[in-house]
Amino acid sequence: MARPRLTALVESLPAFVPFVGPEAQERARGRPFRARLGANESIFGPSPHAIAAMREAAEGNWMYADPESFDLRQAIARFHGVGIENIVIGEGIDGLLGLVVKLVVEPGSAVVTSNGAYPTFNFHVAGGAGRLERVAYRDDREDLDALADAAERTDARILYVCNPDNPMGSFWPAEALRQLIGRLPDGVLLCLDEAYCDTAPSAELLPIDVTNPGVLRFRTFSKAYGLAGARIGYAVGEAGLIRQFEKIRNHYGINRVGQIGALAALEDQEYLASAVARIARARDRIGEIALGSGLAPLPSAANFVTIDCGRDGAFARRVLDGLLQRDVFARMPSVAPLDRCIRISCGRDEDLAVFAQALPLALAAAG
Amino acid sequence: MARPRLTALVESLPAFVPFVGPEAQERARGRPFRARLGANESIFGPSPHAIAAMREAAEGNWMYADPESFDLRQAIARFHGVGIENIVIGEGIDGLLGLVVKLVVEPGSAVVTSNGAYPTFNFHVAGGAGRLERVAYRDDREDLDALADAAERTDARILYVCNPDNPMGSFWPAEALRQLIGRLPDGVLLCLDEAYCDTAPSAELLPIDVTNPGVLRFRTFSKAYGLAGARIGYAVGEAGLIRQFEKIRNHYGINRVGQIGALAALEDQEYLASAVARIARARDRIGEIALGSGLAPLPSAANFVTIDCGRDGAFARRVLDGLLQRDVFARMPSVAPLDRCIRISCGRDEDLAVFAQALPLALAAAG
Repeated sequence: MARPRLTALVESLPAFVPFVGPEAQERARGRPFRARLGANESIFGPSPHAIAAMREAAEGNWMYADPESFDLRQAIARFHGVGIENIVIGEGIDGLLGLVVKLVVEPGSAVVTSNGAYPTFNFHVAGGAGRLERVAYRDDREDLDALADAAERTDARILYVCNPDNPMGSFWPAEALRQLIGRLPDGVLLCLDEAYCDTAPSAELLPIDVTNPGVLRFRTFSKAYGLAGARIGYAVGEAGLIRQFEKIRNHYGINRVGQIGALAALEDQEYLASAVARIARARDRIGEIALGSGLAPLPSAANFVTIDCGRDGAFARRVLDGLLQRDVFARMPSVAPLDRCIRISCGRDEDLAVFAQALPLALAAAG
Repeated sequence: MARPRLTALVESLPAFVPFVGPEAQERARGRPFRARLGANESIFGPSPHAIAAMREAAEGNWMYADPESFDLRQAIARFHGVGIENIVIGEGIDGLLGLVVKLVVEPGSAVVTSNGAYPTFNFHVAGGAGRLERVAYRDDREDLDALADAAERTDARILYVCNPDNPMGSFWPAEALRQLIGRLPDGVLLCLDEAYCDTAPSAELLPIDVTNPGVLRFRTFSKAYGLAGARIGYAVGEAGLIRQFEKIRNHYGINRVGQIGALAALEDQEYLASAVARIARARDRIGEIALGSGLAPLPSAANFVTIDCGRDGAFARRVLDGLLQRDVFARMPSVAPLDRCIRISCGRDEDLAVFAQALPLALAAAG
C-alpha cells in the first residue's frame, strides 16, 4: 500500500491548471452562460461540409485513425506548398508544444517567452523542467528585439512567439519576423504559434520556409476553422526536425472524427473566408460596444478583441467578474500591465448583444 | 539556419514506430484489405446510441470539450463505484502510459515488463529515459512471480502487466493478481493495462481498490466498446495519485465527439453485452478455422485469438505475410517464443470468412 515514488520534478510542480473551462464555472454557478465568449472558439462553427463529414464518420469510429494522418497531412502540405514530410499533426497546438519541449529542453534549459503570453506553453515548459525567461510586452505587443536579446543572453533552447498574439490580439507582419529570424542566435528554436493567423491580413503573413530548421510554425483547426473540439493542430517545419516528433509522439493519439473533419474544413476555403469575414465584423462590433462604454478596444488580428478597461488589474478583474455574473463567459490576461484588459471572443450578433447589455452594468458595478 | 539542439535523450532514441497502421500498408500495396483483423478494434462497432450521440455532437465541435471531462468521469466513477477524483481521462491508454512514465520514471529508473508485451509502453519508457527490464513469458502468460522478483531486484518504478494479455490473450484471475500485489516491493507502481477486460470473465476480474496508491488500472473505449477512433481511455486509482496527472496532462487534449460517444457507449451496457457475446462467438470461430488448418488456437479472454503456427518465428512471419497478401490485415508477436504465433482480431462472419479462405493458402505458401 506504499505510494509510488514520483519524480523530483513532478513533486516540485504546482497543481496548476492553465485554464479552467466554462463548464466548471457553469457547474459552480449552477447555471449556464448565455454567451460563450472566453475561449476564442469560433461560434460560427466549421464548414457545413466538415459537419457532414464528421457525422458520416461517426459510424466508422470503431477504427483507429491512420496514425500517419496521411490524407490530412497531404492536404495540408499541398495547401502550404510543402512536402508531407514537413507536417506533423498533434492533439491541438497544445499537444505539439508539449512535444517540442520534450524534443529540445534539457533540465534547466532556458526558454524565452513574453510575460503574460500563453500559459499552456509555460505549463509544458515547467513540465519539461525548463527555466522560463519572461520578457515584458512593449506597447501591448511582443517585443521582438527584447525577445531575441533574451534568447541570446540566456542561450535559450526555445523562443516562443504568438502571432497574432494571444491575449493582446496584436500582429507582427512578415518583415518584423524576418528581422527577428535573421538575428536569432544559433541553436534556438523559434516556435511561432500562429493559431490565430487565419484572421490576420494574409498578405502580411510570413511565408513558410521549410528549409530553415530553426523555425517551427504551429497552426490549428481550433480557431477560424471552427473545430476546437476536434483537437487537430499541426506544425510545419524542416523535414529533419519534423521527423524527430516520431520518436516521442503518441502515434495513435489523434481521433478519427476530428481528423476527417479537419480535412473537410481545409478543403472548404470558401467557407473559411466567410467565417473570417464574420469574425472581422464581430471584431468591429465588439470595438463599438467597448467604445460605447468609454473603453478602448485594442487593434486585433485575431478572433477576439482585447479591451483596455483603463485602470488597473483589480478593476478589470471586477469588470470581468461582473460579466461572468451576467452570464457572459470571457477571460482576461493574468499579468500586469496586460491585466488592465478583458478579452472578448468574436461571436454572433445574439452573443454580442448579451455582452453589450452586460458590459455597462459590469462597469457600473466595478465602480 | 542552424539546427536546434535536441536533447541528448532524443538524439539517442531510434526513429521507432510501435505499430505501422493498416492504412500505410494499403498505400504500399496499392489496394485495400478485405478483412481488418489486425488492430483488435471491434468491427461490431459501438452502441447505436453512441453513434447517434457522436453524429449529434458534430455540429457542436466548434467548442472545446470540458477539460475536466466531468460528465464522462462522473459516469465512469459511478460505473466502478468510486469517486470522480479517482478517474483521469487520456487520449487512449497510450496517452496515459506516456503520462505515467513522466510521473514516476527518472532517467535510468528500472521499469519492468514482459518480453514481447505492449511495444507502445516500451516506446514511452524509452521516451522517458527509463531502463526496461524484460521478463520472459511462461507458458504464454505473463509470469507474475518472475515480474515481482524483477521489480524487487531492480528497484523498479513501474511494473507493467496487461490482463487479459496482449498479444497472447491469456488471463490471470483476481486471486493471482492479489498475490502479485501482496508481494510487490514498496515504491513500485503496478500499471495494470486492462484494455481487454470487458471480454474477460467478469466474475474473475480483480475488484477495483482505490485505497491502494500502488496500483493503477487502465481501461479504454477502444476495444469491446468499439470506439478505437475516439481515443478515450482512462485510469482508475487512488485520488492522490490521480491528482498528479493534472500537473502534466494536456488539459485540452480530449476531443469533444469522442468524449460524448464514450459516455453514450458506457451508458448502453446492454449493447456492450451483445458485442461481447458476438466477440465470444468470433473467438470460437477463429479457433475452429485454426484447428481446421491444423493449427492450435490459444485460449483467449480478449477480443482476438492468438494462433500457434507450430514452428518458429520465420515460419509464422511467412504465414502472416501470406495473409497480408491475401488481403487479411493481421499482426503477430515480435519476440521469440511468442513469435511462433499470429494474432487474429475478432470480426463478423464475413471478415472471418475471408480469413478462413486465406489461411490454408497462406500456410501452403509458407511451406
